[in-house]
Formats: sequence, C-alpha cells, structure tokens
Amino acid sequence: MSRGGLSTGIELPNETVISWQAPPLRFGLGATEEIGDQLRALGVGKALIVTDRGLAKLGLPGRVAEKIEAAGVETEVFAGSNVEPTDRSVREALAELEGEDFDGYVGVGGGSSLDTAKAINLLKTYPADLMHYINKPVGKGAPVPGPLKPLVAVPTTAGTGSESTPVCVVDLLELKVKAGLSSNHVRPWLAVVDPLNTLTMPPQVTAAGGYDVLTHALESYTSRAFDRRPRYPDRANRPAYIGANPISDVWCERALELVGQFIRRAVLNGDDLDARIGMAMAATFAGMGFGNAGVHVPHAVAYPIAGMVRDYVPKGYGVEEPLVPHGQSVIVTAPATFEFTYPTAPQRHLRAAEMLGANLAGVTEANGREVLAATLAAIVKDTGGPEGVSAFGYSETDVSGLVDGTLKQERLLSGCPRDVGRPELEAIIRASMRF
Amino acid sequence: MSRGGLSTGIELPNETVISWQAPPLRFGLGATEEIGDQLRALGVGKALIVTDRGLAKLGLPGRVAEKIEAAGVETEVFAGSNVEPTDRSVREALAELEGEDFDGYVGVGGGSSLDTAKAINLLKTYPADLMHYINKPVGKGAPVPGPLKPLVAVPTTAGTGSESTPVCVVDLLELKVKAGLSSNHVRPWLAVVDPLNTLTMPPQVTAAGGYDVLTHALESYTSRAFDRRPRYPDRANRPAYIGANPISDVWCERALELVGQFIRRAVLNGDDLDARIGMAMAATFAGMGFGNAGVHVPHAVAYPIAGMVRDYVPKGYGVEEPLVPHGQSVIVTAPATFEFTYPTAPQRHLRAAEMLGANLAGVTEANGREVLAATLAAIVKDTGGPEGVSAFGYSETDVSGLVDGTLKQERLLSGCPRDVGRPELEAIIRASMRF
Repeated sequence: MSRGGLSTGIELPNETVISWQAPPLRFGLGATEEIGDQLRALGVGKALIVTDRGLAKLGLPGRVAEKIEAAGVETEVFAGSNVEPTDRSVREALAELEGEDFDGYVGVGGGSSLDTAKAINLLKTYPADLMHYINKPVGKGAPVPGPLKPLVAVPTTAGTGSESTPVCVVDLLELKVKAGLSSNHVRPWLAVVDPLNTLTMPPQVTAAGGYDVLTHALESYTSRAFDRRPRYPDRANRPAYIGANPISDVWCERALELVGQFIRRAVLNGDDLDARIGMAMAATFAGMGFGNAGVHVPHAVAYPIAGMVRDYVPKGYGVEEPLVPHGQSVIVTAPATFEFTYPTAPQRHLRAAEMLGANLAGVTEANGREVLAATLAAIVKDTGGPEGVSAFGYSETDVSGLVDGTLKQERLLSGCPRDVGRPELEAIIRASMRF
Repeated sequence: MSRGGLSTGIELPNETVISWQAPPLRFGLGATEEIGDQLRALGVGKALIVTDRGLAKLGLPGRVAEKIEAAGVETEVFAGSNVEPTDRSVREALAELEGEDFDGYVGVGGGSSLDTAKAINLLKTYPADLMHYINKPVGKGAPVPGPLKPLVAVPTTAGTGSESTPVCVVDLLELKVKAGLSSNHVRPWLAVVDPLNTLTMPPQVTAAGGYDVLTHALESYTSRAFDRRPRYPDRANRPAYIGANPISDVWCERALELVGQFIRRAVLNGDDLDARIGMAMAATFAGMGFGNAGVHVPHAVAYPIAGMVRDYVPKGYGVEEPLVPHGQSVIVTAPATFEFTYPTAPQRHLRAAEMLGANLAGVTEANGREVLAATLAAIVKDTGGPEGVSAFGYSETDVSGLVDGTLKQERLLSGCPRDVGRPELEAIIRASMRF
C-alpha cells in the first residue's frame, strides 16, 4: 500500500484486482425490432446472419434479416450451424463462405449459433486453422491478433450466456473432446436479448438451458475466490475467469433466485411469458454479470460427457445423431460436485440452496452438506432432466475415460475451490451415476 | 407479440426494452499499477493526464505518469481542472493545450477531473464551442459526431460514478447554471477503481461523495420505471436514462446496503480500509450497474443550488471561492423528495430505508412515509453534512430562483415517478430548508 507517494506497507501475496467486462445490452420484449438500427450504428453495411436449420424453418432468422434490410444493411443468411458446433461444421461453413466478404455478423440461435458466428468472425478476419486458436493443451492457444468485425448476438435460448462472453466452444470430433478459445476480441459487440425469441423452445431445450444458467451461477459462486489465488505475474493479461468476487456474487445470487422461481414454470408451460422473461434475465446475468468468475468441475466434466457420447439421442432437439446437449451435460455432476466443495464455504452453499427455494429450518453447517445437492436433484426431476451420468449410457467402465477427458480442462479445474485430481474426479463421477 | 412469424397479439403502448452499457472495469487495491499496460493495449502512444492541482501536490498523478511511461507510453500532465469544471476552466484548458496532440486521455481525480478529461477529449477530437454539445434547452444539444480517443478514468473519490457514465457536467458561470452533455462516445473506455487512491480524501469530501452515491442509488431506485413510460418513437436512440428496471434495481439495492454499512465508518476514520473498499464499490455500482436508470428531483435541484451559490465556502476542499460540492447539493432535498414520491411505491421506499439500516418494526405502508427521510437525515447528521438547503445560505427569498433553475432540467425531472412542476418543487425546497 502507498499513501501520498510513500510506499511503507506490506505487499499482499494474493491477487487483489477484479476485472470485469460485458457488451452493451438491449433486453426485453421486442428488443429484436431495433437490430437494424444497431447494426447501422456499428457501421455495418453487409451482415452475415449465422443460425441453424431448425430456427431457419421457424422463420426467425428471415424476420431478423428483414428488420436489418429495412435499416439499409445488406444481409445473407447462413443456416448451417450444428446443434453443437464442431471443428468440421466450422470448416464447412468457412468453405461455403469462401470468397465472400462481410463487415459484420449476427448470431441468431442458441450457444451453437452464437459460437459458430464467433468462430466464423475470427477465422474470416484472421485466417488460420481453428486449432491455432483453441486453448492449450488441446490446441496451440495462439492469441487473437486484434479486433474482429462487429458481432451482434441474438440468443433464442435462455442458457448459454454466449451473447456476452469472450468464449467460443467447439466439439473436436476426431479428438472426441470439446474445447474452447477465449479472447476479449471474440466477445459480441452487442447482446440483443428478446424473451419473445425463446417462446418456441421445446420443454427439453428450455430445461437444459436452465441447467446451464444454474450451473454457471453455482460454479461461479463457489469458485476459488479472486483473492485466494496468487498474484498474476502479468496482470494486464489476467485470465478471463478470475474466480468468485463481490461483483459476480451479486449477479449469481439474483440469477439463482430467478431460476428457483421460474425454471419449473418455463419448462412446464412454455407460454408462461413471465417465466420466459425471468429465465432470459437469469441467463443474461450469467453472461454480463458473473461470466468473469468462471466455472469449474461440472463444466469440465461436461466436455468429455459430450465428447464421448455413443448413442444418446436427446428428445426435443430435432436431431437423429447421438448428442448430449450442453445443459444436460453440466447438470449431472453438479450435485456431487457441490457436496465435494461444501466444506470450503458451507454458508455460501446453504445460501445458494435457499435462493433456489430450499427450506433451511433445522439446517446447520454441520448437517447441511446434502441440502444443495438435494435441491438440484429436485429441480432436475421436476423438469424431466437426466438424473445422472448413466442417463447418457455411461457406466463404471467409462469413468476412467471421462476422468482423462476432464483432466484436459486444466483452466476450468483450477477454478475449483479445493484441489481436484484423478481420485476426486473419479469419486464425483461415480457418485453422479444416478441421483 | 409474434410467434413463428405470425403477428397476432396486442401491441403494448409502453416501452419494453432495457438498454444498458458500462465500460470494462479494473477494481481493487493496486489496480492503478496496471494502467500503463492497459493504455498500451488500447493503442495509446501519447496520453494526457488530466487532474487537479490539489492531487498533483499529493503526488498521485505523477505516480500514474511513471507507471504509464514504464509501459512505453509518453505522458503529459495537465493539472488545471477546477474543483467543479466550468465553461471557463474547460476553455482555458483547451487554450493551454492548443497545438498539442494526444491519442489517449487519463482522468485522475474526482468527478471534476474526469468530466474535464471527457470535455477535453470531445473538444480536441471534434472542435466546437462547448455550448454546441450541451443538452437543450441550455445548449444546442448537437450529437457527438463519432468515437473519441481512448479515455481511461481513475477516480480518487467514491461518489461521482463518472468513470463509467456517458455524462459530462459543467458549471456555466455567466448563466449561473450547471448543465450536462450525454453521449456514449463520451463514456470512458476503461474504469480503474483503486480504493487506495481514495485514502487521502478528507472527511468532508468522503461524506459528500457518499451522499452522491446514496442519491444516485435512491433516485435510480425510485425513478419512473422503464416500462411505465410511452414507447420511444426512435428506439435506437433511446435516452441514456431509461428509468428504474430490474437490472438497475439489483445494483441499487447492493449499493444502498454498502453505503448503509460503510459511509459513517469511511467518514469518521479515513484509514478504515474495509470502509474505503465498500464505498468505492458502492460508487462503482452506480456507474456500472444502475447508471442507466437515471436520477430525478434531488439531482435537478442540485444544479441551481450549485449554480446560484453566493458565499458558501465548503470545508475540506482546499478552496477559497464560494462553491457547493456536488454531493452536498444533491443530499439536501433528498428527504423531502422521497416523502413526495413515497405514494408511488411505498414498499420500495421502505425497503430502501431498511437496506440503509432502518428498523421497520411496526412500520406499515400507511405510517411509513417519513422513514426513509429520517434515515437519510440521520446519516447526514452523523457524517457532519449540510442539514438542509439553508446551510448554503439560501432562504425563502431564493425559492423562486431555485425552482426556475430546476425547471430547466427537464430531462431529469421527467424521471420523477410522479409529475412535478413549479408548485411541487416549491414545496420540496421549502420543506428542505432545515431537516
């Protein structure tokens, strides 16, 4: 510490600074109406709308294109993004767009469309193989060289938070692993969150999105706090995920209250507009509010759970190929994870359970370890979700492979509030086979 | 509402969309250390540090300059900003900097230094007379033509929130009125909030900054809600202040809790580091969290209270000329204002009082009208603040002139949750003469 120019104090060994950033936001019923004016204000003359085939059939991307054209901005629609983006789908998209130039991008859809839009923006602006930018140790982890073109994100699910994060996640098919890249340059320039765009989500997609919000909030809230980590040697390049912090906490708490209040209603009646607004707001808080804290074990295990899928075909996604939706993959190990992390901050775990609706009468720190896990299991059961890792067809013989895949997610595992290695992950996955 | 391409619903007459934006943030002890790297990352080669003479004597701007130079960025220090910026001080600054070029700016100080930095950035980038950009009806209200140079804000008080707002407020000496300009282009590109930089604030400056945070939060929290206003005809140019909304509310509530917990401690012992961190965080939340809601009556009356000052010389500011510090000018009419607005949302007013520490035992909506006013009066008394408009030397004969000046702040008055005109303002100012 220094006062008036004199340095006389003790140097703190730990990190002391919170870094936070989020794109501008337009949130609310009908926010999509103004997207054309927003693109024009960003100086975009020709925009590529990146979306998926299912949405294209429902008509939303076409209507978004009309609104954009009405503002005098040319558009082209690319409806090729996969349910979850893969290295192959991204390469095919780039091949199809070869020779075409855009000075802006609009992602319309779930996390897959938004992440595909991020990848296309990156690779068309600074051409290279996708693996060049994917985080180490899976990829080369090369930094994004500079600013990309303006990207406007229009989420149609309430879950990913990708509309405001610097992260892009891709399924690497041959390596059978999901991996990500992270750069502030990849972050959308504007998030347009319109709950009306989420009304057509089937119950299963609504539930999975809700699980993603839920785990984002709980993992951020329980992650290794920003000031319980050693000081970063290069502080200007602090990582995107800094751990739980007082700013993030405010958002996590409010998101948990919203999910507790609205997830069942949104899943059980998709026309419950208040519930749709509440879930869209909870998802938005993830991206703009607590995305800087970071996730840990459930999101790390989710990567191999999705990557190693054999024959699980989810209902409600309109796909025939095997696939574990992201939201389903993150929720199944959450109950066991939070029993594992409970001793690092019992009050925080109990408070989270309470915000999700648990009754804490008679609960003490000593007897409360299972409260949050039970609260989560009840939400999953009430919303028809997968009640454990075995729901995807995994069994004891897969544990070792799932742990191998999880251990590759070093960056995420470092966010766990207590040290976690092979034995701990084995125990968590085994305990998560069936709630 | 529309679903799957079909428009079949009722059109809502009111606004439905929340717009929100805040600059990236570095918050915490020692955040100032990394400012050089941050400027380099923004592509700045030569930065002007804008600060005031008092701070320059204490040494902080010099230390900031050293850190920036160490990162290979040239600096020049301009220590001319006034305690409150005036049209004259801004013109003098521009004359002194004539012929010099900078590709970035750093504001170091309270709201005055940050607003002076904003004004210099604007007028050096798009030269014009200041009045060209000042809001109507006082100025011409011309829009800022485009992006300005990168501006990094380093607040040394905990109050203004100017480090993250699109607003710049200037005292127009001949017109005897304060007026502002507002543009997203004016917003800083980065806010560096380091509680260590607030340790040298004298108690009176600490208190006034705290009152500013307090009124920011309370006025935002009680302002005419975003969805209780007619739809904006030009939605892409929605005003910067949209009224109370669920995003803003979360931050107002947290800021009120922090102020309630820490303002007395920070004023009564400036070395209470936890209190300094708490107040810096509360001030930051104003800028990043609820600055989009907007203030109303107390901030509107504050303009003529400051502009019409005759002989009030505040303690602790190191000035000899008459001046009403901004934080003092906003707090004096707050108690009477919130008694006036109470019937529009009794629960909200009571909840605000409770977050500030009031005991609501026995309080009902019917008998609670004075609770928030009394809670504010107690805070002002305990922190040695001005206990009413008469503390600045105003009396009954000034009421009419103060109302005239307030009525010029149309933009702010429109945020009041109930209609307010001359008779209501007269009543509020009369009731605010002495708590």
